[in-house]
Amino acid sequence: MTVSDKQTAAEKRRASKKKGLVIVNTGNGKGKTTAALGIVMRAWGRGMRVGVIQFLKNEHARYGEIKAAKKMGVDWIVTGDGWTWKSRDIDESASRARHGWELAQERILNGDYDVLLLDEFTYTIHFGWLDETEVIAWLKANKPPMLHLIITGRYASQALIEYADLVTEMCEIKHPYKEQGVTAQPGIEF
Amino acid sequence: MTVSDKQTAAEKRRASKKKGLVIVNTGNGKGKTTAALGIVMRAWGRGMRVGVIQFLKNEHARYGEIKAAKKMGVDWIVTGDGWTWKSRDIDESASRARHGWELAQERILNGDYDVLLLDEFTYTIHFGWLDETEVIAWLKANKPPMLHLIITGRYASQALIEYADLVTEMCEIKHPYKEQGVTAQPGIEF
Repeated sequence: MTVSDKQTAAEKRRASKKKGLVIVNTGNGKGKTTAALGIVMRAWGRGMRVGVIQFLKNEHARYGEIKAAKKMGVDWIVTGDGWTWKSRDIDESASRARHGWELAQERILNGDYDVLLLDEFTYTIHFGWLDETEVIAWLKANKPPMLHLIITGRYASQALIEYADLVTEMCEIKHPYKEQGVTAQPGIEF
Repeated sequence: MTVSDKQTAAEKRRASKKKGLVIVNTGNGKGKTTAALGIVMRAWGRGMRVGVIQFLKNEHARYGEIKAAKKMGVDWIVTGDGWTWKSRDIDESASRARHGWELAQERILNGDYDVLLLDEFTYTIHFGWLDETEVIAWLKANKPPMLHLIITGRYASQALIEYADLVTEMCEIKHPYKEQGVTAQPGIEF
């Protein structure tokens, strides 16, 4: 066994203990937020402290999951305005995104949660509302080691992917809206 | 507008009404069951009747989600035995899979649920425990039109994909076990 083999083994041993994961669900397919909600449910099932900060409020307002969170006693904070892909008032959206990030920072520093979902957070970086280098540097310096942080949204950047522990891309294979003109279904998609 | 254009528009109008979706989450990445759980949570939030039939009981026994389902009052039926990827007693696994499918058929016919998750059901077909042609023909003939049916697992076949309304492939981009040797985290993965 060479010195470098030994180091690798030691590193692996160190890494095999428990740690708070940074999880990114990205890609153009459906299921990014949905898979994050599955983790919320699972963690809540175990009695962990779970919080959600929803950065973009889409047109359907995520009614099903917000009702569920309320019934479960899971914190659910909506920081986005009524921004949609057709929005024009970008300044307002940017300002709300920054406010959401301040809330997230505060809750992370307070150690309020075991699992924190920053829903559709990637857009705040993608649209330039937040500076990615600053966000990642802040998380590296301040995220409690055991906090599981979940980030969802399209366009996850290379830097975010590098920072994350677990990255899944949801790839669309077949989609009922486009192919059959089926509308979004309550309880399934929102 | 040609006759064929008109037909397409009429078909789209017809299709834009609500319908129960057949949803398949497949692929080698993480998040297949997790995304299905997100739908379970969302539908439960809206007061819909939700059931889960878990076809393979993995080594971690899905502890977090089973606890959550119990707290939520969501039906959760485990039909698999202790089958894992290393199992040898294939006959027992096959027999339990068939039993699970019978339970699913019974509950589908009874109209017990608005949303039914057949968790890791693809394996029962992939391993040849159930006949795929029969399964799909049965579902086509018997699934209530408004029932949302979710099927998860690797190796979704072309026939299942063709039958489904919405298919998402979870593609692995980065995985903490392989790359860092991190163990599965309670509350996050089970």
